[in-house]
Amino acid sequence: MSPRRPTLLITCGDPAGIGPEIVARAVASTSLRRVARLAVVGDPEIFERALHRTGARARLRVVRPESFDPRDDAPGIPFLVSSDEGWISISPGHASAGSGRAAARAIETAARLALERRVDGIVTAPISKHALHMAGYPHPGHTEFLGSLAGVPETRMLFVTRRFRLVLATVHLALRDVPGALSKPSLVRTIEFAAAALRNFRWGSRRAIALLGLNPHAGEEGLFGDEEERFIAPAIREARERGISAEGPYPADTFFSRHAGRKDLGAVIAMYHDQGLIPAKADGVGGAANVTLGLPFVRSSVDHGTAFDRAWKVSRSAANRPDPAGLATAIRVGADLTLRAGRRPLEWSWP
Amino acid sequence: MSPRRPTLLITCGDPAGIGPEIVARAVASTSLRRVARLAVVGDPEIFERALHRTGARARLRVVRPESFDPRDDAPGIPFLVSSDEGWISISPGHASAGSGRAAARAIETAARLALERRVDGIVTAPISKHALHMAGYPHPGHTEFLGSLAGVPETRMLFVTRRFRLVLATVHLALRDVPGALSKPSLVRTIEFAAAALRNFRWGSRRAIALLGLNPHAGEEGLFGDEEERFIAPAIREARERGISAEGPYPADTFFSRHAGRKDLGAVIAMYHDQGLIPAKADGVGGAANVTLGLPFVRSSVDHGTAFDRAWKVSRSAANRPDPAGLATAIRVGADLTLRAGRRPLEWSWP
Repeated sequence: MSPRRPTLLITCGDPAGIGPEIVARAVASTSLRRVARLAVVGDPEIFERALHRTGARARLRVVRPESFDPRDDAPGIPFLVSSDEGWISISPGHASAGSGRAAARAIETAARLALERRVDGIVTAPISKHALHMAGYPHPGHTEFLGSLAGVPETRMLFVTRRFRLVLATVHLALRDVPGALSKPSLVRTIEFAAAALRNFRWGSRRAIALLGLNPHAGEEGLFGDEEERFIAPAIREARERGISAEGPYPADTFFSRHAGRKDLGAVIAMYHDQGLIPAKADGVGGAANVTLGLPFVRSSVDHGTAFDRAWKVSRSAANRPDPAGLATAIRVGADLTLRAGRRPLEWSWP
Repeated sequence: MSPRRPTLLITCGDPAGIGPEIVARAVASTSLRRVARLAVVGDPEIFERALHRTGARARLRVVRPESFDPRDDAPGIPFLVSSDEGWISISPGHASAGSGRAAARAIETAARLALERRVDGIVTAPISKHALHMAGYPHPGHTEFLGSLAGVPETRMLFVTRRFRLVLATVHLALRDVPGALSKPSLVRTIEFAAAALRNFRWGSRRAIALLGLNPHAGEEGLFGDEEERFIAPAIREARERGISAEGPYPADTFFSRHAGRKDLGAVIAMYHDQGLIPAKADGVGGAANVTLGLPFVRSSVDHGTAFDRAWKVSRSAANRPDPAGLATAIRVGADLTLRAGRRPLEWSWP
């Protein structure tokens, strides 16, 4: 594993979705292969079809995961077989137990190789929660699944965009459940995750971590909601006592035009999904990569879904072809983070 | 009142905030005076100070509101006296009963002239809710105050940006109160307001009106919250039965990069304050104007607050000087809307 060109293992995601096709197009890209040594994990027959369907020019070298050697310079892109049930096991464009099982196997294999430090990081294509459930996996998404495989009690989602880095305090919750899910201890822990990310990835551990408010105008001194006073401001004070440059809470509507470009800003913490993802996705597909904080290895991901409606279509316009821009961003961000982290293990506890 | 150059009456807002200074800079702008005949309403001594403080080159013609004649071509910018308590009545940079009273008087005078159709529209500078309360006015903001003066039972907030038009279903509520404040009838009414705006302002009454979901991924088929199924989708169906091209609910995080630029999109409806204002304010100060739907006249407003911390400073850097960009956008949007509406009264009921 060269320190300048890390090895990234890319999962194919749900094979009934656009995952195999965007992975096929990404690994055929010479510019992406310059930023990292790319390997793919999934079902070989399905992936060969994706190469054919997309016209991607890439030669594979099929290997069993246990015999994969990242230093092997033999020609072809290493393809690690995590399942081999083939095209017949899925229904293209539709979630099924078969597609969920194949997606899960690829994730399990990728996590194992990352935990054994045989790859520098993993990059994941989109999966379907419904398919995972049909296949008997209880996890609502990648983040929770990987947390369970790595045996870590807590994770957070980080979005890396061109302009800022953003951590979510809560993720996939009904909006009405958000206020009750936030608390001073959970916010302090989110701030610590953000601070640890600044340190792990050498983004400048003294830089500011800005929290958004929960309510309009950050509550406007208690006029609209009191969560800012009850636990957001107290969490900021406690983090500052622990030596973290936490600040806020800021009104969310004006934050991104006023502060997101500040040179001294390390990360923003949004209280809930849409508050963070509306600005993070403002630049469209490929504008952001999703990174899991809390794992011992680097994991980046596309910021979009399986797009079953556009997967595996035989004829389609150029505009409807699965777009690998999101995966390309995830690969670039994943490569950057593995280089920044260096050989040190990622460390998420806080003194 | 020339049909090509409407008369707009600009209020000075809270005189202790940046209102008088940004109004002074705006009325001195020859490019803004080309888009509309501008008149100002407020306290003359305070406004003269603002002209002096900003170095704005504008000559005033002080008139009593009852004798204001918009067709009078005498030189100078008409300044309508709504209160005359002078500089001594306020504490610069601080909300007070005096500043709230002056702000309220200017709004009352502006509304009266607009209701009498002696001006084509009004443009408002920022006020302070706290100051209004200190002065004994119960209204939480301009929108409710103007609704009460005009005797209309309901209003909605529209934001006009370069890329899209956005209506808020709820405004200044704690986030925890948002789900309970939404209902099928209130959403149908919000859709009708948006459709009436498309018709009043000739934006194309057959264009689509897109509703955002309340929950992450618009609930993802009930996985995170059921409000989409319980009342957002039913409201869309009812609006369609009434002949309005309503659509959605769309996941809010991807909506703005995917749909906001669509040529057939008339307006977006956001469920709550930050969901709409994070994207509407993405372009910074001057990127959006706030327009009140439901009044019989056109009213546009800056999309920012009083900025007490930057008001009336004697010496300051150029970066800290009150920025009239938001007011300039409000004047341009107000002029455009009055021309689009033409001589017809605005009509907000729906057949």
